[in-house]
Amino acid sequence: MLENKNQERTSIENLGEFELINHLTKGFELNHKSTVKGIGDDAAILDHEGQKTIVSTDLLVEGVHFDLSYMPLKHLGYKSVIVNLSDIYAMNSIATQITVSIAVSNRFPLEALEEFYAGVATACKVYGIDLIGGDTTSSNKGMLISVTALGVSNTENIVYRSNAKPNDLLVVSGDLGGAYLGLQVLEREKEVFKVNPNNQPDLDPYSYIVERQLKPEARKDIVELLEKLEVRPTAMIDISDGLSSEILHLCKESTVGCNLFEDKIPLDPTVISSAEEFQMDSTMIALSGGEDYELLFTIGQDDFTKIKGNPNLTIIGHMTDHSEGIHLVTRANEKIPITARGWNSFNGD
Amino acid sequence: MLENKNQERTSIENLGEFELINHLTKGFELNHKSTVKGIGDDAAILDHEGQKTIVSTDLLVEGVHFDLSYMPLKHLGYKSVIVNLSDIYAMNSIATQITVSIAVSNRFPLEALEEFYAGVATACKVYGIDLIGGDTTSSNKGMLISVTALGVSNTENIVYRSNAKPNDLLVVSGDLGGAYLGLQVLEREKEVFKVNPNNQPDLDPYSYIVERQLKPEARKDIVELLEKLEVRPTAMIDISDGLSSEILHLCKESTVGCNLFEDKIPLDPTVISSAEEFQMDSTMIALSGGEDYELLFTIGQDDFTKIKGNPNLTIIGHMTDHSEGIHLVTRANEKIPITARGWNSFNGD
Repeated sequence: MLENKNQERTSIENLGEFELINHLTKGFELNHKSTVKGIGDDAAILDHEGQKTIVSTDLLVEGVHFDLSYMPLKHLGYKSVIVNLSDIYAMNSIATQITVSIAVSNRFPLEALEEFYAGVATACKVYGIDLIGGDTTSSNKGMLISVTALGVSNTENIVYRSNAKPNDLLVVSGDLGGAYLGLQVLEREKEVFKVNPNNQPDLDPYSYIVERQLKPEARKDIVELLEKLEVRPTAMIDISDGLSSEILHLCKESTVGCNLFEDKIPLDPTVISSAEEFQMDSTMIALSGGEDYELLFTIGQDDFTKIKGNPNLTIIGHMTDHSEGIHLVTRANEKIPITARGWNSFNGD
Repeated sequence: MLENKNQERTSIENLGEFELINHLTKGFELNHKSTVKGIGDDAAILDHEGQKTIVSTDLLVEGVHFDLSYMPLKHLGYKSVIVNLSDIYAMNSIATQITVSIAVSNRFPLEALEEFYAGVATACKVYGIDLIGGDTTSSNKGMLISVTALGVSNTENIVYRSNAKPNDLLVVSGDLGGAYLGLQVLEREKEVFKVNPNNQPDLDPYSYIVERQLKPEARKDIVELLEKLEVRPTAMIDISDGLSSEILHLCKESTVGCNLFEDKIPLDPTVISSAEEFQMDSTMIALSGGEDYELLFTIGQDDFTKIKGNPNLTIIGHMTDHSEGIHLVTRANEKIPITARGWNSFNGD
């Protein structure tokens, strides 16, 4: 609804699969020395020169993870890369290569796939990533995207989910809840559009949260910042499913408890005002919303002075002994157990 | 139709995504020293110790690449792994790790996913592969599988598609056309079953070709054999799309021509008899059928004596100067240009 759909259409049906993938990927450059061979043989070849190779993979399904009625394909290509890079950064590692596979109906015109790959290319350029492979095939219904991201790290830099200690500080980058509220705005406009297709939505007041949904960023900058500050997190995870779900993962893998302070959770003003407009609780949105792709990590108390006052980082709690449990400490100073409310793709569809 | 569908059914809808993936992968062991960290963090970690990392990925879509009405899920899990390993072996490399992602409708019972993962587990065991990651999500319609295979190799062992020279011999492992004819048998039985659901098909006479379709193998043994024989192919590719398509790839990437001799193409007796039954030309099936996952490679003439008489390998032609073109030399000694007839998933669906 937000795009001009009256574009030229070239059928992909009569292009061979190899011609198609060659056409879509011809503008991509390989910049990493570690990429020995990219697209064009049975497999790609990487040389990480004795360092560790980091691997993560994600599936994105139309109607489950995205809605093409308001998700421009270029943004979708960008976001597909971002959500995978985020997992590499969450290991405190450098993302270097990706493979991108898509299944689409053969009714998709070539121009639509070009838009998608333009978004992939932009993400690769911004984050310094080589596209090294993928698969392009037809689907009977809907679009599906599978991305595998590869990265590199020295053993001493890798941060797992499992080494948080009692009394470590719990830190989050950026702010939370925006992506979920951006989705609510887009869903609302979709309903308005269904009733009145001539309605031109004014999304200006919501531009921050809509962008958080449609064009999220991965926090490569935070990995670089931590290195510069000489802070090595004890445990780290990215926030893809919501703060509560990720805290539970960190606590489970590290066998610790946690106190999360409600009044410390970083919220953008647009998130606060939009939550009020949708009559939702902004804390609940930050806990359960998901798709923010911020980094959540723990640091030893000795590192407090190094991050104190940094505008990119907020201390939102601290880890405790396992026996103390996992709690949200509310503004009213009540302790409420945190339960998993992270998004489950198998529910409700 | 070939399975008892009246099995116990446990809904996956109320299992969390993490519980589900944990449940499905709990029986998998990690055996490679190079697998530093498998499933359970934001990303997996590999240590290929200064060797090259080989990466390949494939998508398999229900209704395009497989039909669940005759493809048992356990076989599908097995085959999904095999088709990806085949790409690693085609680089003359050792496959070591895989990620497996699936999108399924939440109407799939847990038992069905367990069957699929049992097939994945069997393939991992047979081929010595560590399952290191993946994603499990819902789809609105149909099942989709995305596998990324990783392998390892020393620089001097890697074989590309691009180094075949004029006068090199063209060699293929195993025999061709079986997988395609197996599919024809299964499609025929599906039509019979639609008319008479009580019909019990007798697939015994077709067991070889049906198995080639439902449970193909990847030629790890050929990579090992070539090492033992001290034969290093000049170029190599796996036969996923049909012999003609793969020959064209080798010739294009190596800038050479080729003479392929029709009477040398290895065919199993079941392929010959079934082709007659279906009134198809067995040469055309070998050229265009696909899904055989045999290895096609070129060797210098000096290596002829090393492979001569080996029952696993057949010399089917020789490479020529680029200017001589790419031809099939028929039994009648006619030269016919070879054109791409490899399977294109965007056609005809």
